[in-house]
Amino acid sequence: MTDFNRHPDSYHHWELQIDGDIAHLRMNVNSDFPFKEGYELKLNSYDLGVDMELADAVSRLRFEHPSVKTLVVGSGQERAFCAGANILMLKSSTHPFKVNFCKFTNETRLSLEDYSRNSGVKSICAINAACAGGGYELALACDEIHLVNDNNSAVSLPEVPLLGVLPGTGGLTRIVDKRKVRRDLADVFCTMAEGLRGKKALKWNFVDAIWPKSKFHAAIETRAKELAAESKRPTGNGITLDAINAERTDTGYSYEHVQVVIEDEKRVATITIKGPEGDQPKHGEAYEAAGCNTWAIKAWRELDDALLQLRFDHEECGMVVLQTRGNRDALIQVEKDLVANKDHWLCNEIILLMARVCRRFDLMARSTYALVDEEACAAGAFLELSMSSDRIYAYDGDKTEMIVGPLSDGALPMSHGLTRLHNRFLATPEQAEKLAKETPTMIAPEIEEQGMCTYLLDPVDWEDDLRIALEERVSMSPDALTGMEASLRFGGAENCDSKIFGRLSAWQNWIFIRPNATGETGALSRYGAPEGAQFDWRRT
Amino acid sequence: MTDFNRHPDSYHHWELQIDGDIAHLRMNVNSDFPFKEGYELKLNSYDLGVDMELADAVSRLRFEHPSVKTLVVGSGQERAFCAGANILMLKSSTHPFKVNFCKFTNETRLSLEDYSRNSGVKSICAINAACAGGGYELALACDEIHLVNDNNSAVSLPEVPLLGVLPGTGGLTRIVDKRKVRRDLADVFCTMAEGLRGKKALKWNFVDAIWPKSKFHAAIETRAKELAAESKRPTGNGITLDAINAERTDTGYSYEHVQVVIEDEKRVATITIKGPEGDQPKHGEAYEAAGCNTWAIKAWRELDDALLQLRFDHEECGMVVLQTRGNRDALIQVEKDLVANKDHWLCNEIILLMARVCRRFDLMARSTYALVDEEACAAGAFLELSMSSDRIYAYDGDKTEMIVGPLSDGALPMSHGLTRLHNRFLATPEQAEKLAKETPTMIAPEIEEQGMCTYLLDPVDWEDDLRIALEERVSMSPDALTGMEASLRFGGAENCDSKIFGRLSAWQNWIFIRPNATGETGALSRYGAPEGAQFDWRRT
Repeated sequence: MTDFNRHPDSYHHWELQIDGDIAHLRMNVNSDFPFKEGYELKLNSYDLGVDMELADAVSRLRFEHPSVKTLVVGSGQERAFCAGANILMLKSSTHPFKVNFCKFTNETRLSLEDYSRNSGVKSICAINAACAGGGYELALACDEIHLVNDNNSAVSLPEVPLLGVLPGTGGLTRIVDKRKVRRDLADVFCTMAEGLRGKKALKWNFVDAIWPKSKFHAAIETRAKELAAESKRPTGNGITLDAINAERTDTGYSYEHVQVVIEDEKRVATITIKGPEGDQPKHGEAYEAAGCNTWAIKAWRELDDALLQLRFDHEECGMVVLQTRGNRDALIQVEKDLVANKDHWLCNEIILLMARVCRRFDLMARSTYALVDEEACAAGAFLELSMSSDRIYAYDGDKTEMIVGPLSDGALPMSHGLTRLHNRFLATPEQAEKLAKETPTMIAPEIEEQGMCTYLLDPVDWEDDLRIALEERVSMSPDALTGMEASLRFGGAENCDSKIFGRLSAWQNWIFIRPNATGETGALSRYGAPEGAQFDWRRT
Repeated sequence: MTDFNRHPDSYHHWELQIDGDIAHLRMNVNSDFPFKEGYELKLNSYDLGVDMELADAVSRLRFEHPSVKTLVVGSGQERAFCAGANILMLKSSTHPFKVNFCKFTNETRLSLEDYSRNSGVKSICAINAACAGGGYELALACDEIHLVNDNNSAVSLPEVPLLGVLPGTGGLTRIVDKRKVRRDLADVFCTMAEGLRGKKALKWNFVDAIWPKSKFHAAIETRAKELAAESKRPTGNGITLDAINAERTDTGYSYEHVQVVIEDEKRVATITIKGPEGDQPKHGEAYEAAGCNTWAIKAWRELDDALLQLRFDHEECGMVVLQTRGNRDALIQVEKDLVANKDHWLCNEIILLMARVCRRFDLMARSTYALVDEEACAAGAFLELSMSSDRIYAYDGDKTEMIVGPLSDGALPMSHGLTRLHNRFLATPEQAEKLAKETPTMIAPEIEEQGMCTYLLDPVDWEDDLRIALEERVSMSPDALTGMEASLRFGGAENCDSKIFGRLSAWQNWIFIRPNATGETGALSRYGAPEGAQFDWRRT
């Protein structure tokens, strides 16, 4: 199993330093520790392992360091801020790995933006040297970009001219949608390998401030303090995040609250997630005292890990079946207490964690079916996961129940900003409003009447119908399903985040598989080779 | 050169019948007249030639038949409404052709929706038999879908289960964004080869009405009359659309108002479009009297044809250089008169034509650079074309001028609904407002100060800088450029139309080139073969 656990004490590639209310996160990639063998991580270039540490650092900042009010992202190397994703790594990776790598890096950068928007911690990117490709995409995810004004420090997205692929970690979308750079200037920028320095980078709005080298650190510190002073992040006592470790079982892997059973031959994974048992914290201080092993944190961290395992280690698994178990009322009570205390930093972070995991689920490039039988805990955020699924199969039994919880009214938005209720009831927004406001408990016939299941199955048919449904689904083209699901899951509005996944990623996937990039004479394959790339010039 | 001219007198595949204020357009595909040799168009399946006739019919309805208030789209065959895009055609087509075919069909369906939204002619799709794939995508583009309620008539999108590709002519997006079908029901629908019949199709909102066969025609006629009675389309005297024919020249092709010079070795096409000369009609009746050869109609139809020629017949041409010529004030005067008379049906149609051609230009999968030199007619809708381009190169001369015209304030929206000024000035919407309201005339230095050019070039540098700019651009990976341009051109908001091109098309492009679709054992390649498809099961 891939180990997604990281810890600052053993980071190879980042230094996390907390100075009062300011955190410094410095990229200092150790070239000798690539995620896989076969390449060196020169010039602060990155791979999945580097990004896992970044994701870990942002998580720990959220949960372990509530006193932090500003984050400064910088480089621990003088020669390079960051050279972007490692090219040899990209060259030597399979298509599914590349796509999953891009998706993970996108999610990590979005989590940084979520940390700013919803936790109140703004970030400054302090660029002291060359900042290229994914390095600049990381900068774009920060609230402010500060650049040393000298001959060496530049920001660039050289993927198109040098590699024949896109800056695929959200960069193109963030330039025009987040920074609102004029499209023709964006066009110039994205086709120049050398990028922009100093005044021009500032004038064209690719950075927010430039500084002489001698004044750079002082300016960053000053600005970081200003932002910290403006922050509304409530303070408190951080909790320590322990590692999340699954146990391997004969049929998959198992956490405390999450079980994953993988039927390799059927290409089906069944995830069972369990609701809270026994006493749960009632308010923020109690959550601080309970720490990371409390259900509301641990169960969701486990689910997050399980989803990543499926993505990276079980590529052929085409179907995720979601089962929920536990006491529905207990789960709803946890959510009510969280909502009542959402001004507490930790309750806020817990809700944000749930929201991010739900979005990770939305973005699984696997078919997802949720089962709601009599034992199911289809309540609150577990019901959100069910609504996140491509279909919901409900069992027509006396004890089958669904409860809409208090988090369904906007606390767990999808990538495109809609609630899952609104996304489900695009044609009847009043139905979404009603369910969100009334948070009803529905029994089997109501579940169908209210439009909350795809199929309400007779108990006699339950097993056979499900078996056939799964068999049918996994028999179809995996690619066509991915494209179809990406198109059907996100209805209505679009925003910067969803355009990254829906538009930019789709183009990048296409480009990654085209001979002009990854064929024998493609630009990515030929990068650094004495012979240049040879293209099929037909434009499509 | 591909001949995009069609005429109802010689349609092979459609019957256009005008009954007072109701037009009937019946698909009756002649299987013996495929666009290219090698396949038969059975069961009302379609190819590019069929869609060219459809596009022609919609154009003629707009210009030749202003008395029409409702359009009924039906089938001339009893056994099939439409079987969708011809599979043998898809199998035997190159990737660029498939992509261009999908784009053209999308544009045609959008023109049908534009006819409803902006010309006031609602459309009914009358489905009398099986309606599959692109057939149902055509139905989705109509305002209402009526279905015979019997055992044979069904709507379906069987691409995913049968072919391993997407319904790529807008279908997936229209289901969830236009018809707002619940996403899980959409998921079921798109994975069932047989589709939905009668009551279930109605209940799930895939159709708007169902009728017994015996009452079908009467019901359609009744509904068509109701819609016609509600139409606000102003009436008038239609004009006849003559064929658009370019003359081949040594270096490209030439129309009356549009010249195209193609430098094959450089992979650059220069389009020169000329503004109006001499007297132009001042109002609607004068336009009716002047007919299709008046500048405001002919020049834009010629440009439209030129763009299509470039797409289909010059696939390797990577760069479109846009040159404008003519009297700026004369062009602005034409636009002022059109705007003053936009309640006249023909003035309205002319503006809508310009808008569609501008959008076709936005969607060219070619790099587009606009040149604004001293002779340029960078005014009004020609300035819109310049803003539609990836970059604007302006010549720093005394006589260089730009004029924002009255159509730039919303009459020529991009696919995603923004004006080109708003799209250009996302960061400073007040600048977009100001230019749209004041419609200023700008000389060279102002052009740069107002953010209306990418580069203002010194006369000494003009030729060299342009040469280098073009050489650099066409040397890059055609695929990376397509993905980059698609990402940078459309900032901000998204809507159903732009999601079709930005999201759905990108996924379809990816899927078309994946071995799971078009490889030796892919689903599209193996369709109809005794051995089923074999998939690489890795999900990405």
